[in-house]
Amino acid sequence: MVDFEKIQYKPVSVRNLLVEMKDLSELMIDLAYSAALFNSRELAEEVLELEERVDSLVYILEMHTMLAARDAEDAKLLAGVSRVAAATDKISDAAADIAILVLKEIGIHPIVREAFKKVEERLTRVEIVHNSILIGKTLGDLELAANLGVDIIAIRRLKEWIINPDEEKVLNEGDTLIARGAPLGIKELEGLAAGKVQKLDH
Amino acid sequence: MVDFEKIQYKPVSVRNLLVEMKDLSELMIDLAYSAALFNSRELAEEVLELEERVDSLVYILEMHTMLAARDAEDAKLLAGVSRVAAATDKISDAAADIAILVLKEIGIHPIVREAFKKVEERLTRVEIVHNSILIGKTLGDLELAANLGVDIIAIRRLKEWIINPDEEKVLNEGDTLIARGAPLGIKELEGLAAGKVQKLDH
Repeated sequence: MVDFEKIQYKPVSVRNLLVEMKDLSELMIDLAYSAALFNSRELAEEVLELEERVDSLVYILEMHTMLAARDAEDAKLLAGVSRVAAATDKISDAAADIAILVLKEIGIHPIVREAFKKVEERLTRVEIVHNSILIGKTLGDLELAANLGVDIIAIRRLKEWIINPDEEKVLNEGDTLIARGAPLGIKELEGLAAGKVQKLDH
Repeated sequence: MVDFEKIQYKPVSVRNLLVEMKDLSELMIDLAYSAALFNSRELAEEVLELEERVDSLVYILEMHTMLAARDAEDAKLLAGVSRVAAATDKISDAAADIAILVLKEIGIHPIVREAFKKVEERLTRVEIVHNSILIGKTLGDLELAANLGVDIIAIRRLKEWIINPDEEKVLNEGDTLIARGAPLGIKELEGLAAGKVQKLDH
């Protein structure tokens, strides 16, 4: 829980808050699309949890920006920060709307699936099989973003989802990865996870 | 102008409308970020024009979905279409909010610039110089998406912006391109436009 009484103004906090909100809102859109494409209630629930987090961040950020404004020029610039924060909040709301659709079990209309076709090319869900070279490596070792132009946005491990995993995370056999990226890199990642591509040689 | 009286229900229309709305809303976010990063009033104005287009599309789509519902099951599925349409509308509103920030000349706070840092790696603005191999080629010839993992989202030619250019568009000397994609592909495109890379050999 966030304890609002303890909040003190630090410039670095406003920056970090905005960076986190922006990154989270974009992640949420891709997770919401993934939830719809792969019909995953769990992913949809993760999106709704992230939406609550973004809502808290908006509130904290608004307090920070008010405290940070020392003169009219400051206030003008910080109004810009506040507007970008509001925009990321809208984007996260949109992601939550799509997630709710999945949770209500309305089912995905073929028309929606068609609209998500382009998304399908840049999002994938793959399981890591026993002979995959990804097993035992950290995301930092693999440098998938640099090597394949692909980001791992979520890992399903046993019953849990690890959202936006960090560089130290080690990949295990049986992990299911949700990844986004350029279509070619996505194809290559699918091969690596399925043990069909045995070398990451870019 | 859209003439609402002439609208007739065709299943293909609903699909096309939703696909266009979804693609436009994502394009708008990247254009809005580009407008902020490159401090471009013209790009910001393009975003606001697209936002009006999305608003019209929402209205037409709502009419179509109502006319399309023949029974309760239909209505349930089409409610899902309508919800996804509303989500794309929210995303396009968020893009417009950022564009307005640029038009109001509030200036981009360093904090906002920091939040856009990751965006900066996947968006670029480059001019095509006299000895670039891109000159005289169509976007279809170049297959930049397949070859570099990069999409051209806008071309500035003389005083005009061509938004979301199609495959037949021929590139000219002096064109300014706004492109999005994987960081490596973005770097390569910059080299090609600047005439420093003389071969597209992927």
